[in-house]
Amino acid sequence: MPAPHTQLLRAFWRYEQALMTNDVVALDDLFADSPATIRSDGGTTLVGHEQIAAFRAGRPPVAARRLTRVHVREVDPATAVIVAESVRADGGTGAQTQLWSRGLLGAWQVNTAHVSLAPAPAAPRLPDDADLTSIWRVTVDDAATPFPKSPFPEPLVPVGPLNGLTVAVKDLFAVAGQQVGAGNPAWLAAAPVEATSAWAVTALLAGGARIAGIAQTDELAFSLAGTNIHYGTPPNAAAPGTITGGSTSGPAAAVAAGLADVALGTDTAGSVRVPASYCGLYGLRTTHDAVPRGGLVPLAPSFDTVGVLTRTAGHLAAAADALLPAQDVVPVTRIAVVPALMDLAEPAVQKAVEAALLALALRSEATVETVTEIGPGALEAWFTAFRTVQQAEGWAVHGAFVASHPGAFEPAVEARFHAGAQITAAEHEAASAVLEQARATLRALVPPGTVLALPSTSSPAPRVDAGAVEIDFTRAATLRLTCLASLAGLPALSVPTPRVGTAPVGLCLVGGPGQDRTLVELVTGGSL
Amino acid sequence: MPAPHTQLLRAFWRYEQALMTNDVVALDDLFADSPATIRSDGGTTLVGHEQIAAFRAGRPPVAARRLTRVHVREVDPATAVIVAESVRADGGTGAQTQLWSRGLLGAWQVNTAHVSLAPAPAAPRLPDDADLTSIWRVTVDDAATPFPKSPFPEPLVPVGPLNGLTVAVKDLFAVAGQQVGAGNPAWLAAAPVEATSAWAVTALLAGGARIAGIAQTDELAFSLAGTNIHYGTPPNAAAPGTITGGSTSGPAAAVAAGLADVALGTDTAGSVRVPASYCGLYGLRTTHDAVPRGGLVPLAPSFDTVGVLTRTAGHLAAAADALLPAQDVVPVTRIAVVPALMDLAEPAVQKAVEAALLALALRSEATVETVTEIGPGALEAWFTAFRTVQQAEGWAVHGAFVASHPGAFEPAVEARFHAGAQITAAEHEAASAVLEQARATLRALVPPGTVLALPSTSSPAPRVDAGAVEIDFTRAATLRLTCLASLAGLPALSVPTPRVGTAPVGLCLVGGPGQDRTLVELVTGGSL
Repeated sequence: MPAPHTQLLRAFWRYEQALMTNDVVALDDLFADSPATIRSDGGTTLVGHEQIAAFRAGRPPVAARRLTRVHVREVDPATAVIVAESVRADGGTGAQTQLWSRGLLGAWQVNTAHVSLAPAPAAPRLPDDADLTSIWRVTVDDAATPFPKSPFPEPLVPVGPLNGLTVAVKDLFAVAGQQVGAGNPAWLAAAPVEATSAWAVTALLAGGARIAGIAQTDELAFSLAGTNIHYGTPPNAAAPGTITGGSTSGPAAAVAAGLADVALGTDTAGSVRVPASYCGLYGLRTTHDAVPRGGLVPLAPSFDTVGVLTRTAGHLAAAADALLPAQDVVPVTRIAVVPALMDLAEPAVQKAVEAALLALALRSEATVETVTEIGPGALEAWFTAFRTVQQAEGWAVHGAFVASHPGAFEPAVEARFHAGAQITAAEHEAASAVLEQARATLRALVPPGTVLALPSTSSPAPRVDAGAVEIDFTRAATLRLTCLASLAGLPALSVPTPRVGTAPVGLCLVGGPGQDRTLVELVTGGSL
Repeated sequence: MPAPHTQLLRAFWRYEQALMTNDVVALDDLFADSPATIRSDGGTTLVGHEQIAAFRAGRPPVAARRLTRVHVREVDPATAVIVAESVRADGGTGAQTQLWSRGLLGAWQVNTAHVSLAPAPAAPRLPDDADLTSIWRVTVDDAATPFPKSPFPEPLVPVGPLNGLTVAVKDLFAVAGQQVGAGNPAWLAAAPVEATSAWAVTALLAGGARIAGIAQTDELAFSLAGTNIHYGTPPNAAAPGTITGGSTSGPAAAVAAGLADVALGTDTAGSVRVPASYCGLYGLRTTHDAVPRGGLVPLAPSFDTVGVLTRTAGHLAAAADALLPAQDVVPVTRIAVVPALMDLAEPAVQKAVEAALLALALRSEATVETVTEIGPGALEAWFTAFRTVQQAEGWAVHGAFVASHPGAFEPAVEARFHAGAQITAAEHEAASAVLEQARATLRALVPPGTVLALPSTSSPAPRVDAGAVEIDFTRAATLRLTCLASLAGLPALSVPTPRVGTAPVGLCLVGGPGQDRTLVELVTGGSL
């Protein structure tokens, strides 16, 4: 961040903190001592420092809030506009627009301020005629065999972090008494009834959650689109008319629409982060191997991970706590940004992500540092190698089934599997060598105390009726973003604060291995 | 107004009009076509011209509104902030803050906009323990003889502009069946019961109004303070803890507190305009001799006029219509501003009045022109001459009564009358000659189509407990403003849109002789 911004942002953050502590003296100092200074809200416009100071002195402290996006627009080296968005504990939102000027002594002060508040927006809801079979394969209401409950025996069930919350389980996890459908009718037809639940399912039940249902997935999780030719395309309540993204499509749709609180999903190449971004949810991909994958249908075991999606920061913290092993939480003091990654996103996404990142940096008091060592060439090479290994592993895992069920899959998915069959051992080995180097480079980027910030997806959710060319273009750019945490085995958290217009999009934070809880704490910590 | 402002304000006004007509193309043109452009309200911040245009295209037209204050802050010749305040038909208010930049081709566009709305503020109310005897001498509920009604016989009463509205009559006007108290117990003791109502009272009754009560006045109207040692100081509901100003103190207090809709008052040296300014009311001083003064206790007949005060523009239009003779309404194309008059007001009042004036100029599409021919020296000479003639006439009218009732008046009022006794015929004549010249100068300033704008008072309402020095200082500065319309016999309308902090203050508009209806139309006309 350039030097004038640093001073300006320090002054802005001092102002925000002074508001939170109702430090009237500091607030008065940060407003230009002039009869021309203006402060507006919808009801009153106060003109002159004296009037503004009198107003501050006479009012109670403002409601606690958390900055969600901070936009900086430099007018000239001594003048800038800051637009800051925030959210309050009740979900209500606020915005403040401030014109700052730097005085002769170098101090930044506000000349004009406009503040406004709005009540919490209505929760996203599905239309009454939404096709729920595109979301759920089996729900708690229609399951022939009741869903399993807490593994603790009845009188000893402890109160867990997820008490009272419901989970939508992606149809790749074993649920005791149920089959696994994997998004494909042929797979379901051949699937046994599971005797025990997957490790992750049991962990959430042990944390106090109840299963709301088994939710649809893209076929064998080998897609980011969230479409399924057999069961339909789940509706995205957060952005009507768009896809949810996948492959954790049904669980994300259920959580976005308020039909469940936590989505239990998987993320191989972005299958948690993409629907989180498209549906305005928190989405955590965990460190590879940090959460046991027992009872989970694999796709590419080198990259497969368990993940969760939630609407709220509180639910995220609870679900992560139930799933994750004990980990040290390291305060984040540095946020790294790679321009070549920002450039993969649409300009509007870049702007949105930058604003969310700036708010996070101010809240955490971390510095934002630009890292230019990773360029487009390396990203392209890494993505190609990742794709090679993923496809090879996909064929190794599911080739026999796919080959023996021709026409049972959507043609694009089937083609993706068959591409893996063509990969030679030498190609696989060469790709693995590239990935080993990429992994080392990426892990070196995020030592303890540092996280990497990037757009979760290259765009907001495409429309359901978008053409194949647009979908493919979006998918290609997004995969170049999402594959990084995947190939390096790193935890990644998609945060829903950026927005393009009113459409959600994610800010993705990638931490070092085992820094899952650090990411969650960074994003959800603090009093709000 | 300097040239860059003219272009900027044209662009701003085009924007405001485009909003009112929902001209989306014009709105899009006036926002910078950049991904960095920002529009915020409390709920949503849109980033990028594309998103903002999509938002506009998808929303219904915004509610009709009237600009009340427009503040311009130049950052540099190509950058400025505009803060615009507005009011909607339901009394709700709004504010918009916009950062404008001039592009290479000279066109001004918005880079950052913040808009917010608020519901109508609660109506001012008196505390439950307010002393109503400081406001009313006689009310409709305690009058021994019922108040007169419409002069039209019962079945023929027409529907007038004031139907359903109530009037607080200043205790200087004859009301049939009642005495006139004139704010002084000795006067009241000697006063006969009036056989007929004053002309102005009858005109309002004929317009459909009912009398709510006879309201207190400063003694014989010879004060601007609104204090009365006999009956107490009426409370100012619009600015608790401050004086209402006078001498139309009781009627203004009643209207400000919602106890009546129209105050019928008199204005010799500012006795309508000062309480209008202090109480946040519209206040019209009429052209000298335009409204008959029959049935009115005089103070200085050369300057005495009838006036009205109201809370709303609609009530003002109705009351003015009932009182005023037929007059041509001339569209106002030019608003003259005299710097030496602005300088008589506190800096905060100047800023407030400038912002209200700018809103009026934009709404009426009149130009604002600075007139520098009148300087502080002339104003001082005119004020001194005005004071001389006023005091001489006051003594001529009331000297006998005052002299025969020593100690019956507040000492300051009594001293003011006695000062008139000392004025020689030569002094009176010399002062009249000065006034004749002043009158010619002032009338030349306001030909048809032009109005003069100035602060109604030099400050907002002083506190009830303000010291004598502060009161005198305020009074002296205010009299130098108010005496101008008085000495020139011109109509003057105080408009309550400026505010200092949350305290009301008035923008005064002075028109040519007989331009009363023009002033009312200028301020109250239009769809809102």
